[in-house]
Amino acid sequence: MFEIAELGHKVKKSEYEIKEPELRTGLLFAQDALKEADFPVLILISGVDGAGKGDVINQLNAWFDPHYVRAYAFDTPSDEERERPRYWRFWRALPPKRQIGLYVGSWYSQPISDRVGGHIDDADLERALVRVNTFEEALVKDGALIIKFWLHLSEAAQRQRTKELEANPATRWRVTTLDKKHLKQYDKFKRVAEQTLRSTSTGDAPWIIVEATDVRYRNLTVGQHILERITARLQQSAETPPPSTHLRPIAAPEAGERVSVLGNLDLSQQLAKPHYKKQLAKYQGRLGELARQAREHKVSSIVVLEGWDAAGKGGLIRRIIPALDARGYQIIPIAAPTDEERAHHYLWRFWRHIPRGGNVTIYDRSWYGRVLVERIEGFARPDEWMRAYSEINHFEELLTEHGIALLKFWLHIDKDEQLKRFHEREQTPFKQYKITADDYRNRDKWDAYEQAVNDMIERTSTAYAPWHLIEANDKYFARVKALHLYSERLAAALR
Amino acid sequence: MFEIAELGHKVKKSEYEIKEPELRTGLLFAQDALKEADFPVLILISGVDGAGKGDVINQLNAWFDPHYVRAYAFDTPSDEERERPRYWRFWRALPPKRQIGLYVGSWYSQPISDRVGGHIDDADLERALVRVNTFEEALVKDGALIIKFWLHLSEAAQRQRTKELEANPATRWRVTTLDKKHLKQYDKFKRVAEQTLRSTSTGDAPWIIVEATDVRYRNLTVGQHILERITARLQQSAETPPPSTHLRPIAAPEAGERVSVLGNLDLSQQLAKPHYKKQLAKYQGRLGELARQAREHKVSSIVVLEGWDAAGKGGLIRRIIPALDARGYQIIPIAAPTDEERAHHYLWRFWRHIPRGGNVTIYDRSWYGRVLVERIEGFARPDEWMRAYSEINHFEELLTEHGIALLKFWLHIDKDEQLKRFHEREQTPFKQYKITADDYRNRDKWDAYEQAVNDMIERTSTAYAPWHLIEANDKYFARVKALHLYSERLAAALR
Repeated sequence: MFEIAELGHKVKKSEYEIKEPELRTGLLFAQDALKEADFPVLILISGVDGAGKGDVINQLNAWFDPHYVRAYAFDTPSDEERERPRYWRFWRALPPKRQIGLYVGSWYSQPISDRVGGHIDDADLERALVRVNTFEEALVKDGALIIKFWLHLSEAAQRQRTKELEANPATRWRVTTLDKKHLKQYDKFKRVAEQTLRSTSTGDAPWIIVEATDVRYRNLTVGQHILERITARLQQSAETPPPSTHLRPIAAPEAGERVSVLGNLDLSQQLAKPHYKKQLAKYQGRLGELARQAREHKVSSIVVLEGWDAAGKGGLIRRIIPALDARGYQIIPIAAPTDEERAHHYLWRFWRHIPRGGNVTIYDRSWYGRVLVERIEGFARPDEWMRAYSEINHFEELLTEHGIALLKFWLHIDKDEQLKRFHEREQTPFKQYKITADDYRNRDKWDAYEQAVNDMIERTSTAYAPWHLIEANDKYFARVKALHLYSERLAAALR
Repeated sequence: MFEIAELGHKVKKSEYEIKEPELRTGLLFAQDALKEADFPVLILISGVDGAGKGDVINQLNAWFDPHYVRAYAFDTPSDEERERPRYWRFWRALPPKRQIGLYVGSWYSQPISDRVGGHIDDADLERALVRVNTFEEALVKDGALIIKFWLHLSEAAQRQRTKELEANPATRWRVTTLDKKHLKQYDKFKRVAEQTLRSTSTGDAPWIIVEATDVRYRNLTVGQHILERITARLQQSAETPPPSTHLRPIAAPEAGERVSVLGNLDLSQQLAKPHYKKQLAKYQGRLGELARQAREHKVSSIVVLEGWDAAGKGGLIRRIIPALDARGYQIIPIAAPTDEERAHHYLWRFWRHIPRGGNVTIYDRSWYGRVLVERIEGFARPDEWMRAYSEINHFEELLTEHGIALLKFWLHIDKDEQLKRFHEREQTPFKQYKITADDYRNRDKWDAYEQAVNDMIERTSTAYAPWHLIEANDKYFARVKALHLYSERLAAALR
């Protein structure tokens, strides 16, 4: 795999001096055009030690207009990072649309060094690389251009480079003891690199191997390839209409035939007030005790609340929070995204609020908006919301794998109950703000929403993150059921 | 001080049931009006243990429309927080304009508990409280409404409350061993609280002491006071024109009379090319070595680059970065703020990028925009940019106190040199993007800018963060001088 990068490619100084200014001008024009486009560019610089990964980043920082470039690096994870799912740190370090992110160190660093160090075996490495592919795929599908370079040096060249750096007082500081250790592991590192590159060189995000022995060749090759890729992508965006996907929206079967999960719920279930009061106190107490333990053991939880308008999400939240430590929870109501949020993948704004160890985030509506309101209102294209099911499943897998107790509630009421509640809200001064013309408009689309909810439950109720359907025509019943489920889930997580 | 909060205030259930819905409606209307205003509201809930700080937060979370409220809590600082100046964590937890931030635990928690625990003495406490006042003043001057509650219980009432909580299985989990320890320290805590409240009850952000024995009285009092304060503030914003400050812009003395720092620079200083090459290599090597040590010892640095258009900021950055570890620096070019940034105090966007321990942030233009371009172009009102000098000095004091090496460079060229460079840029393809009509417009305002720069240097060159004026008509000379100064500063920080 690396043979072609050991042939001794070189660029003469005279040639470089002609080509470099051209390239630099080209990169600046491409960057300028990028400002009008709607995708981000991620440039990963990986490779063997001594190949000059940092120098390449510095060179790119110098070539590009720094106003639209940002370099990201990943050192040892901070405790804020360790207390969250592994990919949190990568999600927080993504360039917004129209900008360029430069990565020295990336989601590849840990798997490779874990394997070279012998902390994981080949199978673990493959599993980690599947994660990497899924992550990159989500970004690429969202429009991101990912350009991955692997800077290669032959073993002899690596030794030579290290010697040169050491001999020069201006660069001696760069040769650390760690590098020397790596030098000894050259073969092992090469083998792991090969496996990694093979498994992650996808059509959407292929690896480019660059011989790094000659600095001018290395920099010019990297720069030119970036220029080509950005130019091609800009061309393509200009030409292509929004991708007509081969996926077709799910066809709704004839009315009456379909046995829907929602249709099967028994909405007549209820709880009398005195009974409710007792049960509520009981489960709040239990939840409070479990939440305290969870806080102690750094077990986080995430509560996702979805449901019809007026189904009682707010009321349920008000019954949950008395059981929580006010220092440890956040309620995140999902409304219109800010412009920073809009400039990222739609999951980015949810990653932002993933709780630290032991804390709780309550999402009042959530990422499921992608397959509900965005689907119905056409804010997302069919290919976008259709692929969201698997993206969401993957996202939730990362959360639960990290040990987060993830609770997903769908609060279900019927159409009549909703109308009754709308009218009640209109009568109650402190509830009036909750009811707008939008609510009636959404109500008119009840059937389309019902279809979307059924699809959502069918496709995203997983073993690790099942949907809990809450019969909510009776608020008392709904609240107690949800509190009970939350307690059970926490108890299980603490076992 | 607390006598009035030990009188046994109570609200009868019947009274509460009439007043609570009124209050709730009022709060929602106020919150609605706030959406059209342009200031944030900060509500701090502090007080003795057992007084129900968390309950009050939960109650406010329930009363308000959760879409525009966010609760912030501060536990033990994370390592990301510890590696940055103390106030970083508070700056990252500020509500944007038009929203409400609820604080359980705040910038008061640590000073109070440090004093009660005997880790600091009275004088240290006072110093910490001066910091608190400066912080709150900056927010208030920027328009923030800060409402601070102190929930008080008499010693007997505190004991009683703890017993009640313990007796009830639903709330027993709340009584921690820590609380019991605090119970024993009641007197000491009360004394420290009194000192704290006295020193920080300012006209702009007074403390409201609330007797917390009766839950209904406590909640109603807090709610009503919040309603009054927000309403009054909305009223005031509607009535008052932008504050006509008693500060007057600095009067420029007669031309020719003023001896300006800039005028005294000898711009004829230069460095011949062969000499430059040697010196550059020398100082890059030295800086590289020192930067590596700084990284090891977690000494961060911040480089602020200001200067005339075309003074060579970009070129200097390109000469600094080869000496830095690509994993450890960020270049932050200051352009138009995002909407999230615009919704905060102007220093917020700079706090965002304060480096972690051992890292480097290079600001390509900076917070000094407030007293330069914003002053000249009228983007900031005179009272705003005039108070910015002391806000900036305070900000930089926090940075340097934390051990950050802060370097502030003003790259100085004369008007002729600038014009020459503008013309050069227009001829060079990869520099054309740097030159726009704006540059010529700014050039027309040279004298006004010169005045602003002189004022800036006069008022913000402090012992802990001096301005370095770099004679930059000769780029070689300028780069070597700046690299040299940066090395010296790092060397001093590492001693």
